Amino acid sequence: MPKIVDHEWRKKLIAEASWRVILERGMEGATVRNIAKEAGLSLGALRHYFSTQDELLIFAMNLVIERVTERINKIAVQELPPKEKILKIILEMVPTNDESMAEMEVWFAFTAYARHKKGFDAHHDGLLTGMHRLIDSMEQYQLLKENVDKSIEVERLYALVDGIALHAMLDPKRLNRDRIYKLFVYHLNSISKEEFAPS
Amino acid sequence: MPKIVDHEWRKKLIAEASWRVILERGMEGATVRNIAKEAGLSLGALRHYFSTQDELLIFAMNLVIERVTERINKIAVQELPPKEKILKIILEMVPTNDESMAEMEVWFAFTAYARHKKGFDAHHDGLLTGMHRLIDSMEQYQLLKENVDKSIEVERLYALVDGIALHAMLDPKRLNRDRIYKLFVYHLNSISKEEFAPS
Repeated sequence: MPKIVDHEWRKKLIAEASWRVILERGMEGATVRNIAKEAGLSLGALRHYFSTQDELLIFAMNLVIERVTERINKIAVQELPPKEKILKIILEMVPTNDESMAEMEVWFAFTAYARHKKGFDAHHDGLLTGMHRLIDSMEQYQLLKENVDKSIEVERLYALVDGIALHAMLDPKRLNRDRIYKLFVYHLNSISKEEFAPS
Repeated sequence: MPKIVDHEWRKKLIAEASWRVILERGMEGATVRNIAKEAGLSLGALRHYFSTQDELLIFAMNLVIERVTERINKIAVQELPPKEKILKIILEMVPTNDESMAEMEVWFAFTAYARHKKGFDAHHDGLLTGMHRLIDSMEQYQLLKENVDKSIEVERLYALVDGIALHAMLDPKRLNRDRIYKLFVYHLNSISKEEFAPS
């Protein structure tokens, strides 16, 4: 493997180790020392890849966003009926399995931490762009009801996705995958001229 | 002032000092030492009121919930037209001024912190109960459209309120009071037989 690839690959392994530490101990426990230990590296070896804790944490957070974006893009290029694709993309944005639940936990811990740090950008505007695309594509496929306000529908869908993500993390028993599925089908049906799926 | 009242009053002053520390420095900065300094007390004096950091933080968080609940209950007993009251209560649950924004920041920081602490309950089921009451009262006043699923509407309103609260905290410029107002009027209109207010 060329050296440059190996370097990136190592950084990702370290980032994944930091996720496990955050999941286990929260941001308070996400010290460079603990992350090095989890990654099976010496402190010196870890410093070779990340010179500061913040550099590591920002990389780890961006990797979460990258992974989610990758999964969504993969669905976006699939040959699927429009309604099925739209619903599938929305469900990919909320925690419905161990992997996406871990990502939500890391996002949440990181965002809270980043609120009080300069130079950290914890916004996830990528998600807002995704919402615009979803509502736009509903319009393109002539699914949107006549009287909907597109700008508010983007905001409403965005709030709904993050609210559900938050509640699924805080109370996964009540808000299980079935209930989440039912809720988004219901919401999409309420703004669509066609039925999304039997809810 | 009787001694017992003075004790509770002091505890609240300390809790308020802890909010200011959390707002300024995040949970990482919310040490007993920093909170004592902010409250203008010695470490020993503070320990008289709270023997551990967690005890203090739990008290401070419960005080946030108590304040929000008090404000909502005050609206609930006002003599107002039903639709006006429902909208006013919902707007009280999201950050639209400095006070409620600070409460949201504290709630967010505390919830992230509490995820990895035993004995902390960061759920806010009180809010879910409030959502049930709102949807129930819409039904009582015969405002709900015939085809709505009450159970899902409770979940949807709850997710919307917390999603909007989160986004108003992360991006207060985009999601200002006007836009929040417009969004909830729009949402309520979408499930109601009567218009809530000009949106």
